Amino acid sequence: MRLALGIRYNGQAYEGWQSQRSGRTVQDKLEAALAKFAGLPAGSRVSTLCAGRTDAGVHGLMQVVHFDTDIERDPFSWMRGTNRYLPDDIAVQWAHPVPDEFHCRASALARRYVYVLSQSPVRPSLDAGRVGWSMYPLDGDAMRAAAALLVGRHDFSSFRASACQALSPVKDLRRLEITRVGDGERCRWHFEFEADAFLHHMIRNLMGSLVRIGRGDERPAWITEVLEARSRKVAAPTFSADGLYFLGPLYDAKWGLPAEATFQGERASYDGPP
Amino acid sequence: MRLALGIRYNGQAYEGWQSQRSGRTVQDKLEAALAKFAGLPAGSRVSTLCAGRTDAGVHGLMQVVHFDTDIERDPFSWMRGTNRYLPDDIAVQWAHPVPDEFHCRASALARRYVYVLSQSPVRPSLDAGRVGWSMYPLDGDAMRAAAALLVGRHDFSSFRASACQALSPVKDLRRLEITRVGDGERCRWHFEFEADAFLHHMIRNLMGSLVRIGRGDERPAWITEVLEARSRKVAAPTFSADGLYFLGPLYDAKWGLPAEATFQGERASYDGPP
Repeated sequence: MRLALGIRYNGQAYEGWQSQRSGRTVQDKLEAALAKFAGLPAGSRVSTLCAGRTDAGVHGLMQVVHFDTDIERDPFSWMRGTNRYLPDDIAVQWAHPVPDEFHCRASALARRYVYVLSQSPVRPSLDAGRVGWSMYPLDGDAMRAAAALLVGRHDFSSFRASACQALSPVKDLRRLEITRVGDGERCRWHFEFEADAFLHHMIRNLMGSLVRIGRGDERPAWITEVLEARSRKVAAPTFSADGLYFLGPLYDAKWGLPAEATFQGERASYDGPP
Repeated sequence: MRLALGIRYNGQAYEGWQSQRSGRTVQDKLEAALAKFAGLPAGSRVSTLCAGRTDAGVHGLMQVVHFDTDIERDPFSWMRGTNRYLPDDIAVQWAHPVPDEFHCRASALARRYVYVLSQSPVRPSLDAGRVGWSMYPLDGDAMRAAAALLVGRHDFSSFRASACQALSPVKDLRRLEITRVGDGERCRWHFEFEADAFLHHMIRNLMGSLVRIGRGDERPAWITEVLEARSRKVAAPTFSADGLYFLGPLYDAKWGLPAEATFQGERASYDGPP
């Protein structure tokens, strides 16, 4: 039987999603918890695949994984029981049986991320590790003009980490929406990205260049020069991982995954007084 | 010269506000950073007073402190310079010179707190340590009916920790507003409290009883019985510190403290997809 799980986690304490020898990754914690819940002998593990690997420090609002098992429990028990063995900052949101043809990575039609940036003369504190930071005011119109030039099917080599293992640097960036939250000098910016898939560090590299334009250090049209150069050297440095959240993959409705769960963001701790 | 500072912090890593021999408190970190910025010899300290001590695990959106100094720097330098020596999860938001008659505790006209509660069948993860949790759906009307019975000048002995050092258990609870954020089974609740002052553990004890009513385990009128008993034994157990935020004190405008700063909550990391 194939089972899909939706996972939420705070990435601050982990060396990213993917299993490492150190054991300090979200995948390692999840697989150990699943093995305990399944009552497997110590040291054995349940092998999971995920929809989108996240880097060290990146958070997941709705990561999706799948694995095969012959243990029969109802989905609610998988959720509640696995959470008992997970650290405080990782929790399974739902479990759902899926046909064997479902593959969390290959079946994903798109991925969505949000980057949350705090604009303030004061660095983050309550939200340290959970938001990126610009101490300079940003120009939303300029960043949106650059975003419009990025949307579409492009060779994103200029925004690709050298370690990237993707077969092709051509990705279809379907949406890049920039929203300012709050007025005044201190505010938040939400950058929402949707693409068929993303290259390694692609969003953090795009963020570096968008913020450079938002600060007025480059014109919006510069982003086209960067794209066309197909060279990592011309883009801005990689932006911090702190404010990056994997919102999750998008699947065809035929798989019957919990629609309300897939993109329901946990409301953050406090949005500010009314 | 007397200086007032506005401080924001994540309380998860600290044993509360007030200085302890362990040194793991927000006040200890702040006073050490001020001494470093002021260039005082190692081991010397700057003594600060605060508007409201917070317990271990409680967060501060706008704690206010004051201290006396003969070092002359502009307020922006105090803010930026002190932050250089503070841990990531604590930051001075502003500094402001005040007359010697100003006293951050005695001059405060009121204090405000918010308790943020996650209602969900799944425990918190991304926001572990930053929100309280109820796995049961809560009845907002019932909790609001109980809140209406709590507002006003009462003897709050039933909600007072035994270690409380307040001279009187009589406090004026001026506002207790309960707001639901989000629809459906999974949502957030904000409980906003304003009073002249609070007893030790008063909000966490009130939360325990309000949630008991919200779950339907007691009727709203039960809260009056608890109040009138003037005994800690009849109220519900103390609720978790995780979701409690000190919004800050309220001062008379004559002190000229940065009004826009006093209650401007940092927008939390992510409010959920649009």
